[in-house]
Amino acid sequence: MRKLILVPFLLTLMVFSGFGQRKIVNLPDIPGYVTLKCDFHIHTIFSDGNIWPTYRLTEAYRDGLDAIAITDHIEYTPHKSYVPVDQNAAWKLTEAAAKESNIILVHGAEITRSMPPGHINALFITDAEALRKDSVWDVVGEAVKQGAFIQWNHPGWKAQQPDGIPRMYDLHKRLIAKGWINGIEYFNEEEYYPLVFTFCEQYNLALMGNSDIHGVISEKYTKPDYTNRPMTLVLAKEKTAESLKEAMFAGRTLVYFGNMLVGREQYAKPFFDQCISIGKPFYEDGKNVYLEITNNSDLPFYLVNGVSDAPKSVTLAANSVTRVVLSKKIKTPLVYDVKNVITGENKVLKVTLSY
Amino acid sequence: MRKLILVPFLLTLMVFSGFGQRKIVNLPDIPGYVTLKCDFHIHTIFSDGNIWPTYRLTEAYRDGLDAIAITDHIEYTPHKSYVPVDQNAAWKLTEAAAKESNIILVHGAEITRSMPPGHINALFITDAEALRKDSVWDVVGEAVKQGAFIQWNHPGWKAQQPDGIPRMYDLHKRLIAKGWINGIEYFNEEEYYPLVFTFCEQYNLALMGNSDIHGVISEKYTKPDYTNRPMTLVLAKEKTAESLKEAMFAGRTLVYFGNMLVGREQYAKPFFDQCISIGKPFYEDGKNVYLEITNNSDLPFYLVNGVSDAPKSVTLAANSVTRVVLSKKIKTPLVYDVKNVITGENKVLKVTLSY
Amino acid sequence: MRKLILVPFLLTLMVFSGFGQRKIVNLPDIPGYVTLKCDFHIHTIFSDGNIWPTYRLTEAYRDGLDAIAITDHIEYTPHKSYVPVDQNAAWKLTEAAAKESNIILVHGAEITRSMPPGHINALFITDAEALRKDSVWDVVGEAVKQGAFIQWNHPGWKAQQPDGIPRMYDLHKRLIAKGWINGIEYFNEEEYYPLVFTFCEQYNLALMGNSDIHGVISEKYTKPDYTNRPMTLVLAKEKTAESLKEAMFAGRTLVYFGNMLVGREQYAKPFFDQCISIGKPFYEDGKNVYLEITNNSDLPFYLVNGVSDAPKSVTLAANSVTRVVLSKKIKTPLVYDVKNVITGENKVLKVTLSY
Amino acid sequence: MRKLILVPFLLTLMVFSGFGQRKIVNLPDIPGYVTLKCDFHIHTIFSDGNIWPTYRLTEAYRDGLDAIAITDHIEYTPHKSYVPVDQNAAWKLTEAAAKESNIILVHGAEITRSMPPGHINALFITDAEALRKDSVWDVVGEAVKQGAFIQWNHPGWKAQQPDGIPRMYDLHKRLIAKGWINGIEYFNEEEYYPLVFTFCEQYNLALMGNSDIHGVISEKYTKPDYTNRPMTLVLAKEKTAESLKEAMFAGRTLVYFGNMLVGREQYAKPFFDQCISIGKPFYEDGKNVYLEITNNSDLPFYLVNGVSDAPKSVTLAANSVTRVVLSKKIKTPLVYDVKNVITGENKVLKVTLSY
Repeated sequence: MRKLILVPFLLTLMVFSGFGQRKIVNLPDIPGYVTLKCDFHIHTIFSDGNIWPTYRLTEAYRDGLDAIAITDHIEYTPHKSYVPVDQNAAWKLTEAAAKESNIILVHGAEITRSMPPGHINALFITDAEALRKDSVWDVVGEAVKQGAFIQWNHPGWKAQQPDGIPRMYDLHKRLIAKGWINGIEYFNEEEYYPLVFTFCEQYNLALMGNSDIHGVISEKYTKPDYTNRPMTLVLAKEKTAESLKEAMFAGRTLVYFGNMLVGREQYAKPFFDQCISIGKPFYEDGKNVYLEITNNSDLPFYLVNGVSDAPKSVTLAANSVTRVVLSKKIKTPLVYDVKNVITGENKVLKVTLSY
Repeated sequence: MRKLILVPFLLTLMVFSGFGQRKIVNLPDIPGYVTLKCDFHIHTIFSDGNIWPTYRLTEAYRDGLDAIAITDHIEYTPHKSYVPVDQNAAWKLTEAAAKESNIILVHGAEITRSMPPGHINALFITDAEALRKDSVWDVVGEAVKQGAFIQWNHPGWKAQQPDGIPRMYDLHKRLIAKGWINGIEYFNEEEYYPLVFTFCEQYNLALMGNSDIHGVISEKYTKPDYTNRPMTLVLAKEKTAESLKEAMFAGRTLVYFGNMLVGREQYAKPFFDQCISIGKPFYEDGKNVYLEITNNSDLPFYLVNGVSDAPKSVTLAANSVTRVVLSKKIKTPLVYDVKNVITGENKVLKVTLSY
Repeated sequence: MRKLILVPFLLTLMVFSGFGQRKIVNLPDIPGYVTLKCDFHIHTIFSDGNIWPTYRLTEAYRDGLDAIAITDHIEYTPHKSYVPVDQNAAWKLTEAAAKESNIILVHGAEITRSMPPGHINALFITDAEALRKDSVWDVVGEAVKQGAFIQWNHPGWKAQQPDGIPRMYDLHKRLIAKGWINGIEYFNEEEYYPLVFTFCEQYNLALMGNSDIHGVISEKYTKPDYTNRPMTLVLAKEKTAESLKEAMFAGRTLVYFGNMLVGREQYAKPFFDQCISIGKPFYEDGKNVYLEITNNSDLPFYLVNGVSDAPKSVTLAANSVTRVVLSKKIKTPLVYDVKNVITGENKVLKVTLSY
Repeated sequence: MRKLILVPFLLTLMVFSGFGQRKIVNLPDIPGYVTLKCDFHIHTIFSDGNIWPTYRLTEAYRDGLDAIAITDHIEYTPHKSYVPVDQNAAWKLTEAAAKESNIILVHGAEITRSMPPGHINALFITDAEALRKDSVWDVVGEAVKQGAFIQWNHPGWKAQQPDGIPRMYDLHKRLIAKGWINGIEYFNEEEYYPLVFTFCEQYNLALMGNSDIHGVISEKYTKPDYTNRPMTLVLAKEKTAESLKEAMFAGRTLVYFGNMLVGREQYAKPFFDQCISIGKPFYEDGKNVYLEITNNSDLPFYLVNGVSDAPKSVTLAANSVTRVVLSKKIKTPLVYDVKNVITGENKVLKVTLSY
């Protein structure tokens, strides 16, 4: 019989008084490392962004990030008639609040040149004003002198690379030879560049993934396909600026966007293993065994290319339990390709499910 | 500089082939027990519901439930001109699928009388057809003979109790005296009855919370205030029908709906403790210490009535990290009332935060 | 300066007392006709659906439909062990409520055969029980005798047509020759069959689009790509059962699903014209003229293949105003293909924008 | 029978090339006037906002507004260490884009004083730099000299009026006496001040409603209770800056927020009439007449206090059709209070439904 009348509900929203609130990005640590969620490419009104620096921190806090870099353009400052150029302004405005928010604020800037070398982020610098120099060699040299990690940004950006295919110019090779490029963006904004994986393997560089946000994060990353900004997941020994930097120079990164996780197998494999747990069979009948696989992460996993009597494909939805029905006739181990965990330009993670 | 063109995204939805998918209800186990998420009050077309029994199982699976009971009315079968009365039909139609879905299917029925005693669910019965008897004493007696757990449903339902206030009639007391009422619904559909807590304490009964769904679960429980149906959380020794029943008779339940958790302090307190972890201070300045509290559960906690220099209130949002800024002058322990964890008719959980 | 404190908001949800509420499907009438939104393919628990008939009416009401047919399978009744077969049951259970809800209830049934002819809906019948006959000819003959409009369902359904391509068998041609097929589904559930347009043109049949729903409408049609079920838009002289039937036999239909509108140009063209209004230029500068186009409908329009100096493409989002900036150099009329208004198997609507 | 396989869907998002897209705010014109949707209280980084001026225009365009004023604080410029004070900067940066977007950009500024007079917006000024003066009388006088409409902002803001109750100080009365206050905010941000209606009636001023936004509009106004910012609806003879100003000085405004519409009966009544249409009865039986009321607006209407046999309350949901079942015994006209259309401090709109 249906209810006719509701008892009114007491529960109301409460005012937050002096407290922040921060989403838990459900991506696990791997043995030996903490997984720091980072965005190393962010703009503010101090170059061509629409947002005041402290609001970038608010966004990062809400998004559950551990580290960000604000990286306004050095050479492109279209607001300068109203806002005097001060390449360190965003840093100075956010430094104190970052500390109080448990966010590692990486001092950065975007060196903004035509291709080659294109756009380059200098991260972990100490003075962005010193990066106003004509020669690319001088400016990157100065950044390196300040201790910078050098990231080559969006190498396949069509404004600079009309076919959308990243190209390693001689200039890049010479910078790399000196240790003056340390990472390349695989993800940028809503784009990705498969070839970057090969570059990173060839030259032993870190894979990077960042938002390059100019507008409002919450307006951009609320699509069915992606509700988070791209992130660089840095596998650091602990959550400190020093550990972060050490891990980046050591190339211990995975990059994450939408439904994709990209990175070297040595990191992607234990990451997958931390996300997934396979339960004991909860039931069997004459033909089949029934079990559940729990994916305790924000990332779904699309397992494909199952062999013989095993299910052809298994989708392990994010933060969900998936029931798997296995024929008792299966003799071979359950081997799958994880379609959305990319471990090379043309390679995906291969996993074996044991139960 | 803004991106002009998107590289099209490869990721597409994949077809599920023979696999189910099940939400993780993020409510923790407590030491010594697994927390089984249950709904013991569900209708189908076999009484006055709109849904075929197997679809009830689909809904429960999707919602991440561990156990359900389909409890069609014994005495109220408005579809009988088209659907012959068979009180065991829903059970027979779902039994096999429940096993294959890792859901404990509790055989049940709703004894549907005017007040007193009102509506009563018989759970863990073996034959609902045997419950068609005139006398309340005969029908409850038969259910008890079958081993039933007897639940008194929606005692404050206005159709039967016009002022909305549950009333313990003499008949109820006599049933209880014989052990023939074992639990009472505190939550039903979208209602709740604070007085039920007192009844349960007085007579040592289990608190129950269920949906009493007649229509479509996903259409009913997608409000801003509640995205889940009401649930009885049974603290069982393991996930089996026997353990479930033992725990219910032992009164080891918490009930959950919207932002509210209701139950005896001995269970609510360890439940809260499992949800919350308090980090070490990550920063301090001259005046304050900064730390983070992680609420790793689907339930927010509203802490109020902070004393002296401590924050007056702290909202620990669900699945979130909350920053807390504490004055260094605080001498007293951080004691709070958890406004939405109800441990008595007029009582809420009191907690002390240690850091 | 930021506000500190909220004045609490008075507005609360009100209880609906004896009133229904019905969405406005914002799809316009065209000159001379009202556009009736219809779904002629719906299942209930009386064949293999999960929903009780009256709830189908609730769904249709909420969705703003003008007419529905419940069309349970004649030959496929898997619930028969518990629900005796009565092909008119759903009709009898919903007839009165339909009248009270301003929904035209079309008496229907699905003749469920292997291919050919596959599945066929008989609409506007008077007695579905009389359709239990062995021979296809007998059953369709009986339906026609009752005055039925005959709809060939999902001709490319892979369970019956493994390559997914609809095929006109000899049996279909012979039925059509007798006037015993009057329409074909172009949309069914989430599928569509471009070839059906050609069949309908060749044999002068009505294009049909329906949900074929077995589960819950609100759970199925809440995807980013489609928030409504497929609909047959019938261009009737007035909202009556007789006008509806007349229009269907006359082939005055458009079919609508997701972002697609499909139908003969003679109906699609005035429909587009009713959706769109082009404003006078609101501004001009040395180079350009600025104007706004209002799309006052739930359907977006994707205009492509603009020529010479005109914009290459214009997206007129649903229920939105779109600004168009036109170079003053444009000499040619603004001619576009409306990519998502399909007027033939390989043809889309061509429009000229006049301002 | 269920479908097994989906034909993949062609429909993809299209790139917007040089075109804008603008929501239709579905609030009707009234006879003789166009209803301009306006927000006259907006901040940017040039005072204490977080957003660059041109993005305010983007937000307004998306929200379907006809007119906005950017009104940065004159006396409160916390960003001045990095952004030199230029009170006209936001105006100069947005003027051209506003013209190209069909948005009337009202040149404005917020005179920011302690109470009394509190905060005051000067609208339709020509030079905000000239408003930097010590004396309130001098600054308001200068604004008036420039032709300004003077709006008293958030008179019940607790930072200045701790009990939250607006108070008309002697200074306000003297300003009003000179014609130097022309409107008062009834809605500001998420607050509202019932007493403002009385002030506006007493002194013949315009009711105003604005966002006072400092952060991101789309993040603030996406609550269950309100999906739009507060708006001043100006009933202008045509959509021009001159007509807008004329209507404001004439007090032809309604204010809108959440589910509330507030304004003088002479405007609220025809507005309601334009939203609602009552259909002819579509059905009757022995006891009742059935008809439909269409609410073709974004505003729901809560009709209460029905008398005798009429329904006690009728909720006309936004953009919906509501069925009304009327007893044939009803003799009296259908008179209701529209609970959410406020026509005085303690008065709501009274309507008679004729069918």
